Amino acid sequence: MDKERATNSGNILYIRLYEVLKSEIILKKLKPYSKFYSVRQIAIKYDVNKNTVLKVFKMLEENGYIYSINGKGSYVKDHADFSISEKVIPIMENFRYGQQNEISEINFFNGTPSKDMFPVDIYLNLAERAIREIGGGLFTYQNVQGLKSFRAVLADYIEKYDIFVDSEDIIITSGTQQSLSVIFKAFGCHPEKTIVISDPTYPNAINFFEDMYNIRTMELENDGWNMESFEELIKKEKIDLVYIIPNFQNPTGIIWSTEKKKKLLKLSKEYDFYIIEDDCFSEFYYGLDDGDEICSIKSMDKIGDERVIYVKTYSKIVMPGIALAFTIPPKKFMEKFVLTKYGLDPNTSGLNQKILEYFILDGYLDKHLEKSKEILSVKFEKMLSLLLKIPHIKISNIPRGGFFIWIELVDCIDGEIFYYNCKLKGLSVLPGSIFHYNKRNSCKIRLSFLSATLEEIEIGVKIMEDILKNYKI
Amino acid sequence: MDKERATNSGNILYIRLYEVLKSEIILKKLKPYSKFYSVRQIAIKYDVNKNTVLKVFKMLEENGYIYSINGKGSYVKDHADFSISEKVIPIMENFRYGQQNEISEINFFNGTPSKDMFPVDIYLNLAERAIREIGGGLFTYQNVQGLKSFRAVLADYIEKYDIFVDSEDIIITSGTQQSLSVIFKAFGCHPEKTIVISDPTYPNAINFFEDMYNIRTMELENDGWNMESFEELIKKEKIDLVYIIPNFQNPTGIIWSTEKKKKLLKLSKEYDFYIIEDDCFSEFYYGLDDGDEICSIKSMDKIGDERVIYVKTYSKIVMPGIALAFTIPPKKFMEKFVLTKYGLDPNTSGLNQKILEYFILDGYLDKHLEKSKEILSVKFEKMLSLLLKIPHIKISNIPRGGFFIWIELVDCIDGEIFYYNCKLKGLSVLPGSIFHYNKRNSCKIRLSFLSATLEEIEIGVKIMEDILKNYKI
Repeated sequence: MDKERATNSGNILYIRLYEVLKSEIILKKLKPYSKFYSVRQIAIKYDVNKNTVLKVFKMLEENGYIYSINGKGSYVKDHADFSISEKVIPIMENFRYGQQNEISEINFFNGTPSKDMFPVDIYLNLAERAIREIGGGLFTYQNVQGLKSFRAVLADYIEKYDIFVDSEDIIITSGTQQSLSVIFKAFGCHPEKTIVISDPTYPNAINFFEDMYNIRTMELENDGWNMESFEELIKKEKIDLVYIIPNFQNPTGIIWSTEKKKKLLKLSKEYDFYIIEDDCFSEFYYGLDDGDEICSIKSMDKIGDERVIYVKTYSKIVMPGIALAFTIPPKKFMEKFVLTKYGLDPNTSGLNQKILEYFILDGYLDKHLEKSKEILSVKFEKMLSLLLKIPHIKISNIPRGGFFIWIELVDCIDGEIFYYNCKLKGLSVLPGSIFHYNKRNSCKIRLSFLSATLEEIEIGVKIMEDILKNYKI
Repeated sequence: MDKERATNSGNILYIRLYEVLKSEIILKKLKPYSKFYSVRQIAIKYDVNKNTVLKVFKMLEENGYIYSINGKGSYVKDHADFSISEKVIPIMENFRYGQQNEISEINFFNGTPSKDMFPVDIYLNLAERAIREIGGGLFTYQNVQGLKSFRAVLADYIEKYDIFVDSEDIIITSGTQQSLSVIFKAFGCHPEKTIVISDPTYPNAINFFEDMYNIRTMELENDGWNMESFEELIKKEKIDLVYIIPNFQNPTGIIWSTEKKKKLLKLSKEYDFYIIEDDCFSEFYYGLDDGDEICSIKSMDKIGDERVIYVKTYSKIVMPGIALAFTIPPKKFMEKFVLTKYGLDPNTSGLNQKILEYFILDGYLDKHLEKSKEILSVKFEKMLSLLLKIPHIKISNIPRGGFFIWIELVDCIDGEIFYYNCKLKGLSVLPGSIFHYNKRNSCKIRLSFLSATLEEIEIGVKIMEDILKNYKI
């Protein structure tokens, strides 16, 4: 089921039908566990063909509104359903236990540098310094927007990315997910909002927005969305938000062209929507192609008519334990964002903020980034060169940065089957399905080169090669 | 506007009408900025009297769905409205800058012990120990449910509250607000959910649930809700959740009777809803009356048929900088809660978890609670005795614990006017309005005795007395 493809081809009938039937359930016109309509009833009532109705029923089922019993038809789901889809098992298996998993397997799934890269000694030194200088005040509730001194240091620091803002324009959060929570809660879900995301994209963004907003998806070309298709979409339907990772997209590694970034910004003004720009990995490039430009959309955003909500996390580039991100919303949103943040979590660590402030001021961050990039670029080259030798693997976008390589299994082995095959041999990868809004099957796999050693990269790729060689379709 | 009172008296007509009109806006049948119906149109269409319609229009306006222009009627509000109601100014003024506010005023607003009570030296010692023992692993992503060793220590510790659970039954969060976020996101907002809260209650719970769920309110008697009225309410309408603070309720200080706690639990099974039990201050009692029982509803919750989602924070009883709370949901919810927590914030500090684990294990927590209770009980007695001498102040529930005294201004000076009068004289209190779901005007004031010194308590109460004495109605 692919909402976006349908929209692009002009066939929005089934999305409308989906919304109509969903509304009946949401508004409790139909009671939980009661019989849902038959395909035939709906086909007649709305004068549409049965295949369309079947598609819509499948979508309702996938999104948790109905369930079917073989031979008996469809039923309305319970209001509070706590079952977990088997599609998210790879997420639970790999992330539930954090990076503290005791099972020894080769780790190609991780989205965070491994713990031997963390600046733990510096952290402790800076913590002692902060506590000595400030004392108990570090452990009280802080300015909800974030420590002013820390915001001032950040505002200076990000000038190197051509982002020129004041400390008052920045709000601190405890990570990307919290930034998304603040944005979501500030925009509200009544009246219903519609967000456009890339397909595939960061699974936590999907998990976050689904069931909250109406979601529309756009496929990625090697330099961003097809902007004509996107414009067709927004001509037909009012959208409120867009969520993208324009540099080294997760999972594809794609860099949006500057032209497409500009176009998106232009359209946001014409069609009155806001752009959530998740800029999590832009420091990590390993040899760019001619024409690659790692600029943010925020750097082009006009003050006074801002359209970008910029999100940047330090959990990835320093360590998760620092648990800090920042967001730059349009100026006019700030008070509401602060109030919303207060309601969601008044508790962002003053100690960690002060530590990161010193870490940046004293030049540790730049040194840390340089060192991390060196290590990762060697791992990246190693993994890439090995993968390119395997005929069963296709890489349509050779990444020039970020943390991941997004590969296609050319004989189209299902990604989930491949995932479980790898698991059996002691290798953990991530199947493509979890990066799709509808979790549809996919022959894609996301590989991370962050955590494995060079030797493990060699062994891991060999495991993949053997599975692919011996696989019988 | 008082939804709950109307419900109790059987007049649910205007709530239904409110829902119908709200739906039209939510489902975008009416466009933003377009003219809304006139009172007359609705009165005729639904055959209800104009006063009822006026009430409903006022409620729609208060909840942000419509706005009115004098002489022109009502209009539909924009989808993304970022204005902040003037009713929340006292929240922003007092909490925006955390407890680091430089303005010197007497603090009767605070909900957290003052920073001179924080165990900062112990924190640093335990941090060094944890880093020495575990190293970088503390700064990676942890088990999403929380460190297993920490959960095990908690499970043992809370046996003293007659709560007998296993480490697997506990999920760690970074505070009460995050616990509420996990609960909200796990239950989902489609189909719409209905929650019952106390009126008045904790403002952050109101802020959290409003715009997410349908909210119904119950007035508080001195020993909890009127259970007959509550049963009337749930007979008429399916509810999904209840949120209460059964011990030393914020702001009233009320302790629910054991009988009413039991009744609520019984009803939750009969009418199929879940109870969010926020047990934030139950350790802080200062001389109980005969008959007071500080038990949790969780301690009565039957395993296998659990109805309570228990929430307990350590931000209040240790310090905000520890930023840890835990939640015990019914067993069958746990996997979904873990997956939801992963989506909202995979980042809860391993270091803080380990520190709190040691803090409990080494007996620091019990000592800390004992010492805090001693200090607070002296402040409480002081403030209470001074207040009782003022004829313009009525206290209908003399609290026996918690952090607050909830007073009524007997000449019914509006709480917000009183708030600004106090501010002018260098005293910060909290007006009753922010504790009401609809932020309605109130002659109530919440006073905290946490942060002020004994001398400041004397000066602060004197300021209040002077304002009340000189106030001309």
